[in-house]
Amino acid sequence: SVAMPAIAQSAPEVKWRCTSSFPKSLDTIYGAAELMAKTVSELTDGKFQIRVFAAGEIVPGLQALDATQNNTVEMCHSASYYYVGKDPTFGMGTAIPFALNTRQMNAWFLFGNGLTLMNEFYKDYNVTMLPGGNTGGQMGGWFRKEIKTVADLNGLKMRIAGMGGQVMAKLGVVPQQLAGGDIYPALEKGTIDAAEWVGPYDDEKLGLFKVAKYYYYPGWWEGCAALNFFFNTAQWNSLPPLYQHALTAACARANESMLASYDAKNPVAIQSLVKSGTQLRRYPNDVMDAAYKASHEIYEKLSTENPKFGKVWNDLKAFRNNAYTWWQIAEFNYDDYMVRARSRG
Amino acid sequence: SVAMPAIAQSAPEVKWRCTSSFPKSLDTIYGAAELMAKTVSELTDGKFQIRVFAAGEIVPGLQALDATQNNTVEMCHSASYYYVGKDPTFGMGTAIPFALNTRQMNAWFLFGNGLTLMNEFYKDYNVTMLPGGNTGGQMGGWFRKEIKTVADLNGLKMRIAGMGGQVMAKLGVVPQQLAGGDIYPALEKGTIDAAEWVGPYDDEKLGLFKVAKYYYYPGWWEGCAALNFFFNTAQWNSLPPLYQHALTAACARANESMLASYDAKNPVAIQSLVKSGTQLRRYPNDVMDAAYKASHEIYEKLSTENPKFGKVWNDLKAFRNNAYTWWQIAEFNYDDYMVRARSRG
Repeated sequence: SVAMPAIAQSAPEVKWRCTSSFPKSLDTIYGAAELMAKTVSELTDGKFQIRVFAAGEIVPGLQALDATQNNTVEMCHSASYYYVGKDPTFGMGTAIPFALNTRQMNAWFLFGNGLTLMNEFYKDYNVTMLPGGNTGGQMGGWFRKEIKTVADLNGLKMRIAGMGGQVMAKLGVVPQQLAGGDIYPALEKGTIDAAEWVGPYDDEKLGLFKVAKYYYYPGWWEGCAALNFFFNTAQWNSLPPLYQHALTAACARANESMLASYDAKNPVAIQSLVKSGTQLRRYPNDVMDAAYKASHEIYEKLSTENPKFGKVWNDLKAFRNNAYTWWQIAEFNYDDYMVRARSRG
Repeated sequence: SVAMPAIAQSAPEVKWRCTSSFPKSLDTIYGAAELMAKTVSELTDGKFQIRVFAAGEIVPGLQALDATQNNTVEMCHSASYYYVGKDPTFGMGTAIPFALNTRQMNAWFLFGNGLTLMNEFYKDYNVTMLPGGNTGGQMGGWFRKEIKTVADLNGLKMRIAGMGGQVMAKLGVVPQQLAGGDIYPALEKGTIDAAEWVGPYDDEKLGLFKVAKYYYYPGWWEGCAALNFFFNTAQWNSLPPLYQHALTAACARANESMLASYDAKNPVAIQSLVKSGTQLRRYPNDVMDAAYKASHEIYEKLSTENPKFGKVWNDLKAFRNNAYTWWQIAEFNYDDYMVRARSRG
């Protein structure tokens, strides 16, 4: 569409497919992949085209990584922690309980050892990763009944996936795996007692507030949730450097934009949910403490059994402990004051 | 350096100069402009070259905006709040006391009205702005004596610029304007009693801990500090769309990268400072409350006197109040728990 300058006629036409693990209805997450693709096109005068496909259009959402590994598609937009069944090390590419907040995660990826270590791990799966957006800190899920102590969790059927589910299981919960669209009817019928999804903006669209009144925080298993762009490594290597640069810059833009989008949308949604009768509840201290302890027991056990996990976890843990040494000072106290000032009106 | 694909021979060679308001010694901030320039070059196969100049090489740091407005340079990397002397509205492009934290600032810029409103304001100065990095929440400065109540501020000579200085003046402080390199000797000789600079990483390099023992937090006048890329609007408009896209993507990458870099460096620096004998102190509540009140009195007065300020402040204030309504739930309580868990060991 642009007369001058055009990328040279010698620039190759490259067409890639990016399979997303997400439906279009998760518009903020799905939109990050679309922004990535649009930016790549803009940066190459339309010569490098990436078409994004919603979950299920090429492969089911949870097979996005396999499709990339097997070169069915050149890349995907997914969440590393969907693949903890293959190896728990995958968890640390997105979120594990009581780990980093969003800014710390970006810092670990870009200026700590995070991206290097994770990409070393991903080598066995023929993929290379770049950060692909973040939801920010998530909520702790919807409950039909109030949770006042850890004993109230006993026997509760909760829709919660991944490592958060393993920790909840240690606290007595019976974790359930359900796709997004199945949560509402299950909660309505009472087939499940609780469910976690994302945060106010996405949760409101599922309508969960109509069938479960208590909305818990914080989502201690997802202090942030990093999405990921995975590239088939051979495909990445075959790209001309100019296109690698375009793709790198486009992913960085999508990474930043998705977070800012959630940070603008969630404040509106949480107020709307409260107006609709949602009761906000903080997880009781004994639940938080039991979950913290159980999580670290799992990490220690996994580190012993699985050297790959141990290598990344040791680095992540040290980064987290350092990061919070600083966070607790200026950042936390600024937010603390602003929260108090606001509540005074 | 790349054989194929190259940008077409028809793509114009464009050479721009970017004057930075900062010395190279502020390597994290200065580095954001260098990363921007490097990325633009990579994205255009070297056809669009931007050379970054440190403060003083072309014009003094605080004349970066004027140099861009007057087309002495095509662009600059600066901080909008350096220009509050022209109009206080400039403050809101970087930081004003008790406003947004870093993520909220990015959200206001990109998905609120922030960037639109600020660029509407900047039109009178012939410049267009894109976000250019963020320091994160800053520290509240170095004091030779402890501050236990607002009365202890009375008559204190403090190196503090901009709107933070105006608020401090209402609390009895005598604000001093000093360049970075002049702070250490002034504090050593006792010409000044206190000084604020940036945060642990940059402050440690100035050596302020050797001449002032008490390091206060939070930096309530800079809950975040957004840097800015300003472009001469006619120069921006003259760029081929491909180059505009490259510059936009490069700025987004620099914006994200600078923050992540500080978030990785500050934790190391704060621990080093504490080992060197620095005493961390939280600003007393009465100081915070007096500063909060004084800030909002200033904002109300400015809004009455200056419709431009009022228009942006009303939008910023509403965004802030909404943003903290959400922030106080999942984000704040996650950090709160992690801080407590860490201090338990």
